[in-house]
Amino acid sequence: MTVTTLKPIGVVRSPLTSVDDAPRQGDEGAPDASIDLEPSVSDALQGIDVGDELVVVTWVHEARRDVLQVHPRDDESRPLAGVFATRSSDRPNPLGLHRVTVLGIAGRELRVGPLEAIDGTPVVDIKSALSS
Amino acid sequence: MTVTTLKPIGVVRSPLTSVDDAPRQGDEGAPDASIDLEPSVSDALQGIDVGDELVVVTWVHEARRDVLQVHPRDDESRPLAGVFATRSSDRPNPLGLHRVTVLGIAGRELRVGPLEAIDGTPVVDIKSALSS
Repeated sequence: MTVTTLKPIGVVRSPLTSVDDAPRQGDEGAPDASIDLEPSVSDALQGIDVGDELVVVTWVHEARRDVLQVHPRDDESRPLAGVFATRSSDRPNPLGLHRVTVLGIAGRELRVGPLEAIDGTPVVDIKSALSS
Repeated sequence: MTVTTLKPIGVVRSPLTSVDDAPRQGDEGAPDASIDLEPSVSDALQGIDVGDELVVVTWVHEARRDVLQVHPRDDESRPLAGVFATRSSDRPNPLGLHRVTVLGIAGRELRVGPLEAIDGTPVVDIKSALSS
């Protein structure tokens, strides 16, 4: 199958600087963070308001792409599970999905929370969390 | 920023063959479909059971990557909105997010529904829909 290219549209700016400090999910005590958008895509923010619910898609650049099975939540007492049955960051295409609330917008900087991605994580997409 | 590569992990097999026939969202009358996984990632399905709720991430290969603003739901009476404020398929990295239920598993074929992606759409990731 063909390989496609993913162009980062922005980057996470967060007080979290290490995977070891990051909670596993946004609702497990993650901090607020900023997304610095690339200038070339700033028009795509039009209409986003404070209070909106968004899904931020990140590229988890520190994840391992060669891992197919994990112990869920690194708990070795739990049986190995395929990564597609889990939310593990390690997977063939390490995409992270994060549901966040918009806290502020200033130019190309989107303030959101909670977000468990660490500082420097590339952002590859942002969507409305609602289907319509 | 660096460009990363996305390797398809499978492909959608669906009775939907044209974007014109496809509903905009899975809950708007989409059919059931199959995902044919690549042999190299079949171990990553381990532990997925019938009835599980998954998020399937597709690469919407027919989308336009140069579109930054759209009329939501192609309704020209609605003001232009940035694609990051919408669920439009057209966007810099055309990733599709689909919440589905597992209907069956046979070897490397995962039967799921509902799924609004058309036949031949590359699948790039599968995750548990639950956070834990």
